[in-house]
Order: sequence, then structure tokens, then C-alpha cells
Amino acid sequence: MKFSPALLELIEALRCLPGVGPKSAQRMTLHLLEHNREGAEALARALTQAVEKVDHCQRCRNFTELDICEICADSRRDTSIICVVETPADVLAVEQSGSYRGLYFVLMGHLSPIDGIGPAEIGLDRFQQRVLDEGIEEVILATNPTVEGEATAWYLTDMLLPRGVRVSRIAHGVPLGGELEYVDGNTLAHAFSGRRAVEQG
Amino acid sequence: MKFSPALLELIEALRCLPGVGPKSAQRMTLHLLEHNREGAEALARALTQAVEKVDHCQRCRNFTELDICEICADSRRDTSIICVVETPADVLAVEQSGSYRGLYFVLMGHLSPIDGIGPAEIGLDRFQQRVLDEGIEEVILATNPTVEGEATAWYLTDMLLPRGVRVSRIAHGVPLGGELEYVDGNTLAHAFSGRRAVEQG
Repeated sequence: MKFSPALLELIEALRCLPGVGPKSAQRMTLHLLEHNREGAEALARALTQAVEKVDHCQRCRNFTELDICEICADSRRDTSIICVVETPADVLAVEQSGSYRGLYFVLMGHLSPIDGIGPAEIGLDRFQQRVLDEGIEEVILATNPTVEGEATAWYLTDMLLPRGVRVSRIAHGVPLGGELEYVDGNTLAHAFSGRRAVEQG
Repeated sequence: MKFSPALLELIEALRCLPGVGPKSAQRMTLHLLEHNREGAEALARALTQAVEKVDHCQRCRNFTELDICEICADSRRDTSIICVVETPADVLAVEQSGSYRGLYFVLMGHLSPIDGIGPAEIGLDRFQQRVLDEGIEEVILATNPTVEGEATAWYLTDMLLPRGVRVSRIAHGVPLGGELEYVDGNTLAHAFSGRRAVEQG
């Protein structure tokens, strides 16, 4: 005996969610049907609506229902700086830090030639045009400190520096509150090579 | 800055799934929109379809799209025994053990007076009628070995024994492959009080 077809289909469909295996999918299916059918209907509507409405901002490529996202359209932001990040979640993280008031460009990934993801796939042609057209003064590279993220940062540097744009990379090192003892060797090596002279007060 | 309304709505809607917190919901939302919009649409369809079609079997209360579920309609099953379980997942577990060929009755819960769940809410009135009408010979109680599951089993025993129905409870004790050292005290106490005489071969 198995579950009935509609249940099996829902169990299978739930597995498109990251981190959801067969057991979780089964538990979710039974939970929804037993305890929260309204929730299931609301979820179906939200999924359909998001897929239909959410697209990329025409300027920064972040997810939005509008042509131009709220950040790009916000006149109070500093339009002379662009921060390049890999994903919409990164934008949120930077925003929540409250440490940045410029604009963004969301790559929606990183360079990965093996997977066929070149500069055009992450919008770099359009990005270069934008930087030049809008007279951007500084581009802050906030791609992840992974092999692909670093490669993407290097590519952007090579692309922008010759055109007279100031390029910077966010600092990588020991996180605040982190204990040296538990920080991995690579990060520690990075923290040492990126050390800054302490100036007299 | 927050995510756009359609994204926020989807993040919120995903939290109706058990075990999904705000961070997971955000990750799922971005994953679906970035990498698997077809999956999101399929999930929306599967949810709608399951909520519309799946209802309780009129005989055993298990989930099914049919009036009478496949197990109840299967003429090869032993119709003189009914196994009482709490959830559809329990039916699946028993079926997969391959140790039972009778029918089921799915309570869809257990007695829990504090939550307003009495005998009628778990279908016991209908169940008693069915046992008497169909001349069931044995009722196997396979509710969970929890306080509520045990209380439900006792209630069923009190209901059925006076009417001349044979009632049994599945055995609880040390699981196969389990090591005594790691089995909790309650289970061990149960295993001792439920010990069976070894007969000479």
C-alpha cells in the first residue's frame, strides 16, 4: 500500500524545496491535510502569485514586482556607489547591517564556466554599461569569499579598473565576537595578510 | 529594506509547513524563484489538487481521493480484524512492515480532552457501530505508547470488551537491534512487565 495519487504527487512536489527529503515531505503533506488546509491553499496562491509577478529589477537585477525596485527608485540613496552581491539574500543581509546607503547590483550567481555561467549570464555586460553611463564613482565587491566569488570579484576588477572606476572589496577576516581558537586557518591567513597599521590616536 | 510584497507573502506562507522557520522559508523562496519556477508552479498545483480531492475514507477515515480507500476496497484483506492507528503515516508504517493483512481504522489523532478532542472527534461512535455491524472478531490497538495514545487505547478497550469483541494491544518493549544499555527506563520497565514465558521446544 502507498498513499493515494494526489498525496504522492504533493509529497513529490514538496521535494522541490531545498532541504526537504522524502520523510519531511511526507510529514508536511499529512500535516497540511490534517491540520492546515487553509495554509495549503494560501501557500498555493502565494506560489502562483510570486512566480507570476516577481521578476528582476531592470537596473539592479534584484527580485521585485516593479520594473525598478524600491532601492533603485529611492531618491535618498547614494547613487554614486554600487555594491555587487551574488543573491537577493545578500542584499537583505547588507541592508540589515545598516552600514550601506548606496545602490546594488545583484549577479544572481557567480562566474562558473563549468556550469556555462559566463559574464553575460550574470549581467556583467549590462553592469559595465551602467557603471559608465551613470558615472559611478565606486564599486564595492561583496561577492562571497569562495573560489567562484573571488574569481567573479577579480573579473569585475579587471573590467572596471582600466575604465577609471574605483573598485573596493569588503574586508574578510575574523568575525566580531569570534574566537581566534575556533576560526579556520584560511580566514586567519586572510586576516593576517589583510592587517592594517594602527595609527596613533 | 525588505523583500517585495509577493516574496514576503510566499516566505510567510511557507511557514505553514512543519519545521520551516523564517530563515528556511526565505531560502526556499529565493531558491524557487531563482532556480525552479516550474517546481513552484507544480507545487502550487499539487497543493490545490490535494486540498480539493483528498478526503477521509468513509470506512477507515484514512486519506483518499475515493469514497472508500484502496485498502478497505481490497477483497483480499482479512475483514475480520481491524487495527486502530492514530495517523495515515502509521498505516503506511504497518503496511511496510508487511506483518498485517487486516483492515484499519485511522483516528486522525488521539483523545485529548484539554484540546476538546473527545471520542466523537476521533470517530469512535462510528467505529463502535462498524465493529458491531460487521461482526469484527478482533480489534488491534496500535495507538502510540504516549500518555494520550495509552488513554485512547484504554477508552477503546472499555468500549469494546463489554460488547464481546476481542481486543489486543501491540507489544511494546526493547526494539529489535536495540541495545539494552541505550534503551530508556520506561521502555525497559515495559519490556519486563510484558515478559512472556519461554515454552519448551
